[in-house]
Amino acid sequence: MSDALNNALGPAGCLTGTDVPAGTAMDASRSGRTLPRALLRPASVAQVAKALAICQAQGLTVVPQGGLTGLAGGAQPGPGDVALSLDRFAGIEAIDADALTMTLRAGTILQHAQEAASAVGLHFPVDLGARGSARIGGIIATNAGGLRVIRDGMTRDNLLGLEVVLADGTVLNGLSGMVKNNTGYDLRHLFAGSEGTLGVITRAVFRLRPAPAPQATVLAALPDFAAVLRLLTRARALPGLSAFEAMWQDYFDFSAGLLGARPFPHSPPVSVLLEADESPAVMDLLEGALTDGTLTDALIAQSQAQALAFWDIREGLAIDDALPGLINLDVSIPMAQLDTYARAARAGVLARFPGAHVSFFGHVADSNLHVALALPQGADADATHEAEAIAYDLVRDFGGSVSAEHGIGTLKRDWLGHTRSPAEIAAMKAIKAALDPHGQMNPGKVLGEG
Amino acid sequence: MSDALNNALGPAGCLTGTDVPAGTAMDASRSGRTLPRALLRPASVAQVAKALAICQAQGLTVVPQGGLTGLAGGAQPGPGDVALSLDRFAGIEAIDADALTMTLRAGTILQHAQEAASAVGLHFPVDLGARGSARIGGIIATNAGGLRVIRDGMTRDNLLGLEVVLADGTVLNGLSGMVKNNTGYDLRHLFAGSEGTLGVITRAVFRLRPAPAPQATVLAALPDFAAVLRLLTRARALPGLSAFEAMWQDYFDFSAGLLGARPFPHSPPVSVLLEADESPAVMDLLEGALTDGTLTDALIAQSQAQALAFWDIREGLAIDDALPGLINLDVSIPMAQLDTYARAARAGVLARFPGAHVSFFGHVADSNLHVALALPQGADADATHEAEAIAYDLVRDFGGSVSAEHGIGTLKRDWLGHTRSPAEIAAMKAIKAALDPHGQMNPGKVLGEG
Repeated sequence: MSDALNNALGPAGCLTGTDVPAGTAMDASRSGRTLPRALLRPASVAQVAKALAICQAQGLTVVPQGGLTGLAGGAQPGPGDVALSLDRFAGIEAIDADALTMTLRAGTILQHAQEAASAVGLHFPVDLGARGSARIGGIIATNAGGLRVIRDGMTRDNLLGLEVVLADGTVLNGLSGMVKNNTGYDLRHLFAGSEGTLGVITRAVFRLRPAPAPQATVLAALPDFAAVLRLLTRARALPGLSAFEAMWQDYFDFSAGLLGARPFPHSPPVSVLLEADESPAVMDLLEGALTDGTLTDALIAQSQAQALAFWDIREGLAIDDALPGLINLDVSIPMAQLDTYARAARAGVLARFPGAHVSFFGHVADSNLHVALALPQGADADATHEAEAIAYDLVRDFGGSVSAEHGIGTLKRDWLGHTRSPAEIAAMKAIKAALDPHGQMNPGKVLGEG
Repeated sequence: MSDALNNALGPAGCLTGTDVPAGTAMDASRSGRTLPRALLRPASVAQVAKALAICQAQGLTVVPQGGLTGLAGGAQPGPGDVALSLDRFAGIEAIDADALTMTLRAGTILQHAQEAASAVGLHFPVDLGARGSARIGGIIATNAGGLRVIRDGMTRDNLLGLEVVLADGTVLNGLSGMVKNNTGYDLRHLFAGSEGTLGVITRAVFRLRPAPAPQATVLAALPDFAAVLRLLTRARALPGLSAFEAMWQDYFDFSAGLLGARPFPHSPPVSVLLEADESPAVMDLLEGALTDGTLTDALIAQSQAQALAFWDIREGLAIDDALPGLINLDVSIPMAQLDTYARAARAGVLARFPGAHVSFFGHVADSNLHVALALPQGADADATHEAEAIAYDLVRDFGGSVSAEHGIGTLKRDWLGHTRSPAEIAAMKAIKAALDPHGQMNPGKVLGEG
């Protein structure tokens, strides 16, 4: 690696050769095969700026890496890329308990941010399964969603300020963190979700929230999808509704069966896992819905252990092991069409791939559907691509989104045009060219080459 | 005007000469003096696209106009500008009561959107005093705030989809309205708040919300600003907190005095107008706060009329008439510093302009402070600018924002650099050049000339 980078970052800040960790080749999709030619680990904003400026001068392309928990290949190096991690630039810089804000460094692990908020009686409003390794910079760069979007919003909805270093080393300091700031273009929202293609996120200001009340966890059985929408309309009036997760029968039976769980005497056509603040309103809602047939059964968790057991079914804890080739598609579909889409996608995949596993679950209140898809043994990459195409072509036809949460990275580039128009993609490329004219930042990701 | 525009838009769609309404010269700041050389009134997205393409071919610059209720001059024509209004492209296109979304045209008047949501038992989540004339396109272009930001967020926070026509007539259709859509750059948030400098907003998808519960309205007296912050921390736990408005003593006494109102036996150092869902929690909070001295007095409105009387004081209904030269600054200040800022700004203005009126009120929960400022009679424009500079220089020193809600337009351009760094402004200009390379859209606004 270049002497300039070594000098700027020091020996611990510029790893090359056999010092580059093997894990830097891949994110959680485990599809990466290329090691970066170096791993840069700047320990300050000034070092990030210096490192990027040197890379620009030397024509080096840069892939920013966070906790490598992404699922779309967005943090996986391409040939010749230098990786840049902020694992040495982590920590909480400030908490303002009056304004309910936290200023923190991009290398901070999500769980540490959550713990710091809890320590002052507040709530960090982003949560995901990978909380123990995902870093704040990557969470912002992918606009992560997660488990409580219905209550807390997506990452960008909780982002009050952002500091970013552009490819030429220019530092954009947008850390004032004012809730209201109508002073020109909102750069914060441009970088959130840009997957490292416009710059390196270095620090952020997040909105904190009051600590949530204790939650009631309900597992409900419903006769059909129309009942799910009726239940949702009523559930929205519950104080603190924080989860509304539907499982179609195929998914519920498969996941519960693997876990040896049988919460209901009869397998329900659809089940819903619902959480809201503990209050009499929860019981009132259930009683009314059981009376008018919106629900056929409902279980209220009597303990934390039982609540977790309900979640285990939803999370499909046993499915990964049972279906090694599992693909988890993450799409948005107009809400009223979710069930129609599920039927069409199931039929389409099974017609082409008899014996495939295909089942459905998702954050219905956000119109976010997951498709669990596993082809019969022996299916190759082309077959996988073909099965995905069946599901994604239908997403396009239904006017949905091919990526609700996970981003585009490299793995969904083929389907970006299913959701975004040629004019939108051209506008994105114009913005990319304006902020990163040399194409230095995470080349090939999201928008493809050139 | 050009034959091409006449042909594209028809006689009612292209007004020139004496047909151009006098009102098109100015927004609610009443500072505009230039009539547009024509008023274009396209009646469809295709007509907007055609009109902009013709303007580009003929080198005409375009100022988009909504309801002309803005306060920063952003919709006021510059010399030679053609104005473009969507008053003929109005109306609700769709409401999805399951997904809680509304698709509507940019020319729709806010109140009509509110009424359409109410008609199906839902709530349109933007409200402002100018609801009877403000149009949706302008509301998005300025990222309007308004009366219920603490509960409902700013305009952008409720915007699920956006359709925009670029200067060359390209239509960016981002109307899918998916809550979750991580497929490349978020163009929606780039256009929201861009004040017409990047394109013409034609349609949008808004999030609707369940109809709010009946509100309790409280007017509370507090001993000092520290008590305001204590009260806010507790009030955040109230179900449905929808307003938390503070009035400093100078403002409260002046406004209440003009109205002949005297709600408290003694004038309080700070008063707070608070609204939340009617619930026992409101009374519990007040009792606790009165007991521990956070409050010295509290009035709960016993009727709608009494609630409105409280709001009349906050709105300063009588102040405009009493102080004809009134300027209303709209700034954000880090929350804990609000009172310190108010003291410094008051002292600074009065030191330079003895006899000036300067008083403070605002949406404290959003860190948003209004400064009511009126110089002694006979003060000229230079004096006004000097007084503003005193207040805005302090905003910069406190790390706040010179425009919380109203935008930059032309009237705040001099102070954009107080809140945004040269690097941020350069990035904005690069984005502007990428999307509007000929500088056709609303020239001179926000970023200044060139």
